Amino acid sequence: MKFYEVEVKVWLKKSVFDPQGNAVEHALTGLGYEGVDKVRIGKYMQLLVEATDEAAAHDKVKSICDKVLHNPVMETYSYTLAEAAAEVSV
Amino acid sequence: MKFYEVEVKVWLKKSVFDPQGNAVEHALTGLGYEGVDKVRIGKYMQLLVEATDEAAAHDKVKSICDKVLHNPVMETYSYTLAEAAAEVSV
Repeated sequence: MKFYEVEVKVWLKKSVFDPQGNAVEHALTGLGYEGVDKVRIGKYMQLLVEATDEAAAHDKVKSICDKVLHNPVMETYSYTLAEAAAEVSV
Repeated sequence: MKFYEVEVKVWLKKSVFDPQGNAVEHALTGLGYEGVDKVRIGKYMQLLVEATDEAAAHDKVKSICDKVLHNPVMETYSYTLAEAAAEVSV
């Protein structure tokens, strides 16, 4: 089995209102940061996935993202996957 | 002025316990996903930053990340910055 380091980014679709992003944007303006706009807050997840090969790892990660990590009604996601160095101990 | 699309990732330092990540890891195991480990949950932020040039944009983003978007005691961050296409309207 090989280990893959996976990074998943999940963010709200453009059509969905993001109150957390708005709050951060207003806070930044209040702190004197001009020219910062369209702030959107999402989630960033790191996982270590064990799989027989890269294709199996992709299948597993897509399934996890589709079924657990993102809400397809409101959110979009992307992920990157890279084989972990051999010395990773789990 | 130019516009830059910025993506910021903020995550907990390795030494900091991540209960949210643990909960997701246990949920995945409960749902039958074997071989998923070291789940860590962070934040992913998108911003549109207005600046005179790329160096000024980097300065602004670093300042925002250092002072507002991440907690240096518990978190680490990285960001990417790319000039936005000319047709971006704000």
